[in-house]
Amino acid sequence: MAEVYVAGVGMTKFGKSSQTLTELFCEAAQRALESSSVDVEALYVGVMNPEEFTGDSNIASQITDALGLTGLPALRVETASSAGAAALHAAFHAVASGYYRNVLVLGGEKMTHLSTSATTRILAEVIDREERRCGATMPALAAMITERYRKRYRLSRSRLERILCRVAIKNHRNGAANPYAQFQNPISEKAYFSSKLVATPLRLYDCSPITDGAAAVVLTAERTDVLVSGIGHGTGPLSLRERDTFTSFRATQIAAARAYRMAGISPREIDFAEVHDAFTPFEIITSEDLGFFPAGKGWRAVEDGTTAPDGALPINPSGGLKSRGHPVGASGVAQVVEAVWRLRGASEPKPKREPRRALAQSTGGLGSNNFVTILERAGAPRPGQGAAPVPAPAVSHAPQSKKDATPPPPSDEGKIETFTVLYVTPDGFLPPLALALVRDRRGALLMAQGEDVGHLRIGREVFLRQVEGVYYFTVKSHLKKVREGLKRLLRGLPSLRRKGRQGQGRKKTV
Amino acid sequence: MAEVYVAGVGMTKFGKSSQTLTELFCEAAQRALESSSVDVEALYVGVMNPEEFTGDSNIASQITDALGLTGLPALRVETASSAGAAALHAAFHAVASGYYRNVLVLGGEKMTHLSTSATTRILAEVIDREERRCGATMPALAAMITERYRKRYRLSRSRLERILCRVAIKNHRNGAANPYAQFQNPISEKAYFSSKLVATPLRLYDCSPITDGAAAVVLTAERTDVLVSGIGHGTGPLSLRERDTFTSFRATQIAAARAYRMAGISPREIDFAEVHDAFTPFEIITSEDLGFFPAGKGWRAVEDGTTAPDGALPINPSGGLKSRGHPVGASGVAQVVEAVWRLRGASEPKPKREPRRALAQSTGGLGSNNFVTILERAGAPRPGQGAAPVPAPAVSHAPQSKKDATPPPPSDEGKIETFTVLYVTPDGFLPPLALALVRDRRGALLMAQGEDVGHLRIGREVFLRQVEGVYYFTVKSHLKKVREGLKRLLRGLPSLRRKGRQGQGRKKTV
Repeated sequence: MAEVYVAGVGMTKFGKSSQTLTELFCEAAQRALESSSVDVEALYVGVMNPEEFTGDSNIASQITDALGLTGLPALRVETASSAGAAALHAAFHAVASGYYRNVLVLGGEKMTHLSTSATTRILAEVIDREERRCGATMPALAAMITERYRKRYRLSRSRLERILCRVAIKNHRNGAANPYAQFQNPISEKAYFSSKLVATPLRLYDCSPITDGAAAVVLTAERTDVLVSGIGHGTGPLSLRERDTFTSFRATQIAAARAYRMAGISPREIDFAEVHDAFTPFEIITSEDLGFFPAGKGWRAVEDGTTAPDGALPINPSGGLKSRGHPVGASGVAQVVEAVWRLRGASEPKPKREPRRALAQSTGGLGSNNFVTILERAGAPRPGQGAAPVPAPAVSHAPQSKKDATPPPPSDEGKIETFTVLYVTPDGFLPPLALALVRDRRGALLMAQGEDVGHLRIGREVFLRQVEGVYYFTVKSHLKKVREGLKRLLRGLPSLRRKGRQGQGRKKTV
Repeated sequence: MAEVYVAGVGMTKFGKSSQTLTELFCEAAQRALESSSVDVEALYVGVMNPEEFTGDSNIASQITDALGLTGLPALRVETASSAGAAALHAAFHAVASGYYRNVLVLGGEKMTHLSTSATTRILAEVIDREERRCGATMPALAAMITERYRKRYRLSRSRLERILCRVAIKNHRNGAANPYAQFQNPISEKAYFSSKLVATPLRLYDCSPITDGAAAVVLTAERTDVLVSGIGHGTGPLSLRERDTFTSFRATQIAAARAYRMAGISPREIDFAEVHDAFTPFEIITSEDLGFFPAGKGWRAVEDGTTAPDGALPINPSGGLKSRGHPVGASGVAQVVEAVWRLRGASEPKPKREPRRALAQSTGGLGSNNFVTILERAGAPRPGQGAAPVPAPAVSHAPQSKKDATPPPPSDEGKIETFTVLYVTPDGFLPPLALALVRDRRGALLMAQGEDVGHLRIGREVFLRQVEGVYYFTVKSHLKKVREGLKRLLRGLPSLRRKGRQGQGRKKTV
């Protein structure tokens, strides 16, 4: 396989833009082309859903025309919110094969012109259809993953909140030093805790914003100062209900193992990382999936400052998706742009030691289609033979027959595996909306809507009923309380009646 | 570059299906996997617009889960109606680079559940926005290209109609022998000429149908009986108004030159071809762009039977898009499936001599993003050094500054470059609708709506006016006739008046 280098990079300022999607792509492309001295032979465009966001179809041809590069091969690649990284990897293969010597990779999206509810709806289309039917959104599922992580690693609610707040504060502070970031101001602890709840325990400041922007990278077979030394890609179940774990992303673990093996390094050799913090807890979980910290210990690295810009392993020194912004198709390319700038020493805040190796990690959907890219300064000393291989989860390469087409009849009882209360609901659902992932008596996982937002706890027993294909749950202890209340009321009734009879002789007053 | 072979192929029956898009993909995938003895490492999915056709987002992850292959890298590739071919080429690069040894390529689309008007609207999104605003659809632009071809190569209207009819009859007869084809019956000349006009001169039987279906190919680095010996990809302007020719597709010429060079052959070495006959005239134009026949001579090959299944160079022996059907994202992969079957001798109708080399050509949008794939039976004798290189149109590899942002004021006169009368119009437009590509006095091309459907001819002078961003044309000769009619009327008026005065004494009748 031929070695693949980065010839040039560029991006637009991220944020709310008055430019069209094609104009954003062109601005990023022209910057990357100007910063490299090569003529490109093909275009790879990563974009998630221009059809619905901006009504643009045949986007690869549109951009090629707009750039005045008509004639060159151009294609669009899509894997939900990791589309930019997917385009980069497809372009990598084309250069590594020797078919092209120089290619232009673009990632971009335009989202801010739509209402938040329209954007949320389009973004939610990438999650499982049945989970969506219950009212689940991206933040809802992220929140359920967070609650499960908290429970599994025995963090108190207040401690978890303080950890997430630290991630948000760190990334906003980093973004404030990045002129391309959407948010240019640090945030305070007070601001974090006064920001509105989106889906318990996630607040507005735990979620990446809605953003316009584009980023570009020119890949080349010619030797430059930055080598793409490892790439890896993996998938995980689209649906939460099909997962064997909620506290890590298998897709990231698979992608990381492959990328480390290709680069011939272990996670210890990475000097900084740009990871997909669409939600603050995902930065922590991903830092574990990438092998930087053991499972369940990533939060400590936030508490002790390891992932701060002056720490031993800076994470998201650019501000991450949280503060740089998240034009979905752009983020996977923007991470690589930021990493290249930092490897070249051109970014603030400055790290303690000169970085030699960077890792970029991009997540598609709710962790269903993830990518890892390792970049290194050309000529960086290779690690010794001691680089411990990173184990990857087992993956089947032969199609598995799916479970029975006719599952056993659904059970009407189960246990909460994780839950959230949604305060920002999709159209057609009133807040607050309780959602729980329930394991029923058959052992199957179901997404269910709660009839009450209180009394929720992992492990609680619930009653289930299905109405028109949607499951509803009622917490048993809650039901017991309601029943006892009713009993008390009933016990009181005869005396009331008696009182009523006693009063029959009284005069009626008007 | 490592050699890339075909390990297995499979497809669903094309037509109207009750299966979901994912089920169609799975059926095709399972057939391809069963027919190959390898375990695949990654999935490449070609599909044009599942977001709007079926409401499916994050489709690569969906299919991976449905196949029980969760964990494997999976991505979606899109280039409008050539998406399947685009996925195949991206997968080719991945195997040629040595990164993967075996990959699964899928192409598919589900369209028949929508109304014809909804489907037409989604398909029309791939053409230029301004041309669409005038009421242009895919058949409208294809018709305008056809009219220009007729005029340029001096074919009478009736001769052109007979030629297109022969393409339709040939492809329907071929499809009748193909159990996977949507249409299983030959059509008669009478049926062709009694089918309704869609956009002059194209009739319903000149247009590929609306179809559901999926196709799959397993590519491998292991030697098999079929080698992918050449691939090429090119783009052309999205908009007709930006083209330097209407009678050929630059994107195909670029793709073909690259594929022939890679395979080390000339068009003479191709034994049969599957080409993108979304419209019957495109089969003829494409056969010229591929270098099979000189420009303007492709129609002769139809007339003299050269492209019939028993001719010297069978084209679309499978029935082509015309008769096999055209589930847009599927067609680019289906062509390769058909070509592999035929190279292996497993298809009807049987050719005169055993084929050794096949070519598949796929068109994205209105010829804006096209692919050529050359397949050969492993061990086929290489041609001598005499293989003449195929010239490719010049392509700029450095961005061209676009024309002035502020063009000169539009002229109010021009000449018709080509035209059509649309009898099947998009929503909001009443048939018949005249559309013309007009070159105005500045030399710029404009798409304009006609105020009358008569008096249309290439080269005719027209008046132009612009109302709310849409151009309208009136044929000058037509205007002259109207003016003369008015003059005649005016000349007649005094005598009428006189007559009227003379009659003043008459009684009024009620």
